[in-house]
Amino acid sequence: MLTFRLEKTSGTARAGLMATGHGDVPTPAFMPVGTQATVKALSPGDLRDIGARIILSNTYHLSLRPGAELIQRHGGLHRFMRWDGPLLTDSGGFQVFSLGHMRKLTDDGVTFRSHLDGSEHTFTPERAVLLQEQLGSDIAMAFDHCPAYGEPEAKVREATERTHRWAERCLRAQASKDQALFGIVQGGWSAELRRFSAETIAGMGFPGIAIGGVSVGEPRALAYAAVEHTVPFLPSDRPRYLMGVGSPEDLVRNIAAGIDLFDCALPTRAARNGSLFTRTGRVNLRNAAFRDADRPFDPACDCSTCHGYSAAYLHHLLRADELLYYRLATIHNLRFILRLMEDARAAIIGETFPTFAEGFLTGYRSTDEETRLVQKERWLERRRERGEPNDT
Amino acid sequence: MLTFRLEKTSGTARAGLMATGHGDVPTPAFMPVGTQATVKALSPGDLRDIGARIILSNTYHLSLRPGAELIQRHGGLHRFMRWDGPLLTDSGGFQVFSLGHMRKLTDDGVTFRSHLDGSEHTFTPERAVLLQEQLGSDIAMAFDHCPAYGEPEAKVREATERTHRWAERCLRAQASKDQALFGIVQGGWSAELRRFSAETIAGMGFPGIAIGGVSVGEPRALAYAAVEHTVPFLPSDRPRYLMGVGSPEDLVRNIAAGIDLFDCALPTRAARNGSLFTRTGRVNLRNAAFRDADRPFDPACDCSTCHGYSAAYLHHLLRADELLYYRLATIHNLRFILRLMEDARAAIIGETFPTFAEGFLTGYRSTDEETRLVQKERWLERRRERGEPNDT
Repeated sequence: MLTFRLEKTSGTARAGLMATGHGDVPTPAFMPVGTQATVKALSPGDLRDIGARIILSNTYHLSLRPGAELIQRHGGLHRFMRWDGPLLTDSGGFQVFSLGHMRKLTDDGVTFRSHLDGSEHTFTPERAVLLQEQLGSDIAMAFDHCPAYGEPEAKVREATERTHRWAERCLRAQASKDQALFGIVQGGWSAELRRFSAETIAGMGFPGIAIGGVSVGEPRALAYAAVEHTVPFLPSDRPRYLMGVGSPEDLVRNIAAGIDLFDCALPTRAARNGSLFTRTGRVNLRNAAFRDADRPFDPACDCSTCHGYSAAYLHHLLRADELLYYRLATIHNLRFILRLMEDARAAIIGETFPTFAEGFLTGYRSTDEETRLVQKERWLERRRERGEPNDT
Repeated sequence: MLTFRLEKTSGTARAGLMATGHGDVPTPAFMPVGTQATVKALSPGDLRDIGARIILSNTYHLSLRPGAELIQRHGGLHRFMRWDGPLLTDSGGFQVFSLGHMRKLTDDGVTFRSHLDGSEHTFTPERAVLLQEQLGSDIAMAFDHCPAYGEPEAKVREATERTHRWAERCLRAQASKDQALFGIVQGGWSAELRRFSAETIAGMGFPGIAIGGVSVGEPRALAYAAVEHTVPFLPSDRPRYLMGVGSPEDLVRNIAAGIDLFDCALPTRAARNGSLFTRTGRVNLRNAAFRDADRPFDPACDCSTCHGYSAAYLHHLLRADELLYYRLATIHNLRFILRLMEDARAAIIGETFPTFAEGFLTGYRSTDEETRLVQKERWLERRRERGEPNDT
């Protein structure tokens, strides 16, 4: 039920078309994150208006609330959340491993306590596949072991080998013919382990392959290296999905590296925190300079927020903590990212991608690396205090 | 710039057409409350979609943040919030008096501290008129002294007489020809004082008259009596506005009593709390019965929420505290109220209003009076603890 056609390459960047049972996805594509069966603050209509072609939702969260069986009874996740476009679900692996001390790991699977009510649950590869079949997403992800940043290499190797065994079990467990199952490459920061994992997963015949284990708090250079050490060993006729990325600059760099699919909670979370994207970098809307700014936040942006409202009004809504702010800001940040993907794709098709990428990266002031890590650490810390799993 | 044409009466109920510089308002009409230049969780497009014909905003809040002068510089409140329909602003009187101990009252005006930053401000009748002219609403309200519930009659008389003196000052201060200024009747729970106030305010020539001093925590019967003691002394060729009302049953009863305009934060606030209107009464969406309800919340409702989503999905969004919930629930509750007004108007024009009202009130299970007062008291208490003024 999933086909991928490579349309064009420009350098190592690729433009393709991924066809699913719920519609086509031109790639490179970014998937807005709809953790709890809703992209925070947006309706399905909003998502269509900003040009979203595929969205992601979370098996971990949905299986705990409202329950995958309930969603299945109600006709599946597309119908439950009224999104009739392509849908990818992650397997819950990333969330379950981010629970840290709350989990018990065996080769069979992971037992953990719900962050909602402390109830005990077990995810195995088989159960992760079953849950995703109940949700009825177009693309399911294999259940993987995602090591934390900083684990010793022996542990990372163990996690990688377990991920491979679990990938086999996921393939065997798959019962649905309507759902494509993607494998996940692990391997941490070792070139050798990444290659081993990429070749192993690629050899299993998955219709698409994801690169996992990045976006776990590591320095940016390590993530780029992990991608570089993986991509050459992936089949060119299958979509490649880099999980948990990213920021505008990371998207452009990883498109250049040959990635087709991305997801990340950053654009939506940053929007809610007052941090809005422009072509020259992220801007804090709380800045007093916006108080009297009777002009669009970004005159170069084609989103309905920039077309419909002034920066001063957005600044007012943010300061007053008004609900409308979250919707308008999320529309802006997601539209920025989706347009960036559209522009990147057009540049690949026009064989001008290297110029496009260089132009973008030169103009875009990247959030300072250290600030970025400190922010991420702080955010992870807050989540841990509340006992919540990561949803990036 | 404001005309009112009485089209039809059915019993004492009235159907009319109020024309403003930003469009016509068929009456009876309910004004959604947009305290801080936004009806919480909705965009102007949402408001148009649900049939809102006029909305209300708050001079108290807007003058403190972002400031009336800023809004004037940006072309007025219509343009600032991108609402191009009719707009009414209250004068800030109700909010300032609800601050309690934070204020200092003289015959000149009220000095109070901002609930936002403790800064000191003074509202006088002249300043309330000026601020509203800066905001540029279609309808401004006179600055009145709204006594708290439970004040002794001598105090209420004093507040009523002060309200009359301030009404005169507001009229004299009015400089804009584009804005209609409505007078406000006070008088508490005394029939004699209400009549005195109604006749006094009516004699001043305001193009519209409001009934103030209700919806301050009193038993329901007192509010009905206050309206009954006021309406007979109001001119029939001017719109009559009952401030801070209300619930579906109170709207129908007061339309029957001859009221044309209403505003209330209840429908939007109740929605955010999970309390949704149906023709048979308010329903708590948190109820476990909705968990598996794969059907519209209210099949009889014509709103986009009931047409677009299942009750189970709304229940899920509410339990998960998802931002989309607030928008969808607010759309439902406001559409319920606006449709009730449309139906009431059609019944008046068809001369069947008494039957319509009886049918509605028979079918609608009113929130138990005591529960209602306890809830309101609790809510006021929470606001007081936070030092926030009432916004109903």
